[in-house]
Amino acid sequence: MNSDIQTWIEQLRSGNVRALARAISTVENRAPGWAELLKALFPHSGKARVLGLTGPPGAGKSTLVDHLARFYRNSKENYTVGIVAVDPTSPYTGGAILGDRIRMQDHFSDPGIYIRSMATRGSLGGLARTTADVTTVLDASGRDLIMIETVGVGQDEVDIVRLADVTVVILVPGMGDDVQTIKAGIMEIADIFVINKSDRDGAENVEREIRTLQSLAMRGDGWTPPIIKTVASQGLGIDELAAAVSAYESYLREKNLALNKSVENWQERLVEMLRDTLLEKAREKIGKGGLSRYAAEVAEHKRDPYTLVEEIAAGLEKS
Amino acid sequence: MNSDIQTWIEQLRSGNVRALARAISTVENRAPGWAELLKALFPHSGKARVLGLTGPPGAGKSTLVDHLARFYRNSKENYTVGIVAVDPTSPYTGGAILGDRIRMQDHFSDPGIYIRSMATRGSLGGLARTTADVTTVLDASGRDLIMIETVGVGQDEVDIVRLADVTVVILVPGMGDDVQTIKAGIMEIADIFVINKSDRDGAENVEREIRTLQSLAMRGDGWTPPIIKTVASQGLGIDELAAAVSAYESYLREKNLALNKSVENWQERLVEMLRDTLLEKAREKIGKGGLSRYAAEVAEHKRDPYTLVEEIAAGLEKS
Repeated sequence: MNSDIQTWIEQLRSGNVRALARAISTVENRAPGWAELLKALFPHSGKARVLGLTGPPGAGKSTLVDHLARFYRNSKENYTVGIVAVDPTSPYTGGAILGDRIRMQDHFSDPGIYIRSMATRGSLGGLARTTADVTTVLDASGRDLIMIETVGVGQDEVDIVRLADVTVVILVPGMGDDVQTIKAGIMEIADIFVINKSDRDGAENVEREIRTLQSLAMRGDGWTPPIIKTVASQGLGIDELAAAVSAYESYLREKNLALNKSVENWQERLVEMLRDTLLEKAREKIGKGGLSRYAAEVAEHKRDPYTLVEEIAAGLEKS
Repeated sequence: MNSDIQTWIEQLRSGNVRALARAISTVENRAPGWAELLKALFPHSGKARVLGLTGPPGAGKSTLVDHLARFYRNSKENYTVGIVAVDPTSPYTGGAILGDRIRMQDHFSDPGIYIRSMATRGSLGGLARTTADVTTVLDASGRDLIMIETVGVGQDEVDIVRLADVTVVILVPGMGDDVQTIKAGIMEIADIFVINKSDRDGAENVEREIRTLQSLAMRGDGWTPPIIKTVASQGLGIDELAAAVSAYESYLREKNLALNKSVENWQERLVEMLRDTLLEKAREKIGKGGLSRYAAEVAEHKRDPYTLVEEIAAGLEKS
């Protein structure tokens, strides 16, 4: 291994926030050396507790995550915390328009809480993979607890948060007509439900609906996700949520399910990594010009895309 | 070509709804013969107008799409319409919990409006690709106008609707704190903005925010997306929306941009198809057992995943 990387990793593991930030940027942007860096960091990872938190826009996730971070930071264990906030963004500019959240400054004085906003990198980015890689960096840096926060209710968010050890789905009263659809999408990934803004009208309805959907869907591991009511803006329910997280972690340990869950997650991650790697190799061989020439032929209906892709794939294997 | 497929395609193209439904199911489920079917259908495609419509949960998309479908159906051209409604769903069961929408029955008596709900098929499904393939089937069947409707604000939805000729983004007043984030994600894919439920308080605010964001982002094609106000539940603003769609289509034609847009879309689609095909071949070679063995080794930290994936990819090329 490169001795520069060795020094960098030592700095990062000794708590140097700049070395950490640089490592995350390298991995997020796939800058030169990213793969070597991850290979070197991997043996140091696997110790952090990883929480995934998701929910529809307007559910108050950021506020909840901030309170939870302070709770763990101020606990008797004095946890160091890393937060990865994944934002939707423009597919064309490839960067978040809004930039980092204002709340970042809030925590900035405490190096024990590190917050990083991540932008999606267009449709080829493999956002779930990048998020997982950034989590590996934070984990290897020695952070005790990592929270992955994502806004949304789609497959992206499911892919991202399911890589966590514990997945928290945040709902709010009064989501309107489509709340059923949202819940259908994320129902089975939730290890814990949070009803935030639970002082609002309709909190009981949301709870009832979750219970109904729970009675329909069976979990393989026998765990019944608890429903925690919070009012994040007032810091209410945060300790109950932390207790629920601990309870689920204990359950996984007692039932020897933690390794199973990790194997399943790695199965997904390996497939995604393999897909990206294969595609990268294919793109290199075809070249930018080749691809747009093919696209023009298909757009003009001179060629059918299904046969074309088969031919390209066969050609790559042979070469 | 198989003569069974030939007969099937003739039925489908003569307006037989059963033949159409069977073809869509075959393509959606990747049932035997799906690739051959698409190859045979492709030459018949490319004639339909394709609209993509997306927006956050609760924006009233279904109602709007229903009204728009009726509008086109009752126009003097008597358009035949196909609607593909893409729903988020469980990654484990692989099927929509909620099933098809109730409104389907509403249109069922008119074979000129065909509605199909699609479920996501887990993280490996390539939902954008499947939606595009289903659109090709509808297009080849002779539908004059196809609407792709999707719930959400994430990368999935962006990937799906950007394959349309015209993309409509639907917003509503009073979306709460995260409305900025939503708009950042879908701002640049919108060819037309709709503010639905525009009789509610705050419609002017939404309009002002869109205008502000528009002033920041430049479009490559010089088009300024209009903002149409609707109250879909009362059928208000539907003809203005249809006029805006026509105006954008005319603009693309006048500026000779339609082919460019199609080439760009095909470039994305080809990459996605290639990625899926390569991964499929890789999975076949590794086998289910091989993959879980690898995943277990990584989960137990016996092996680093980054080196492992490189080795697998190199092995595939050689064989």
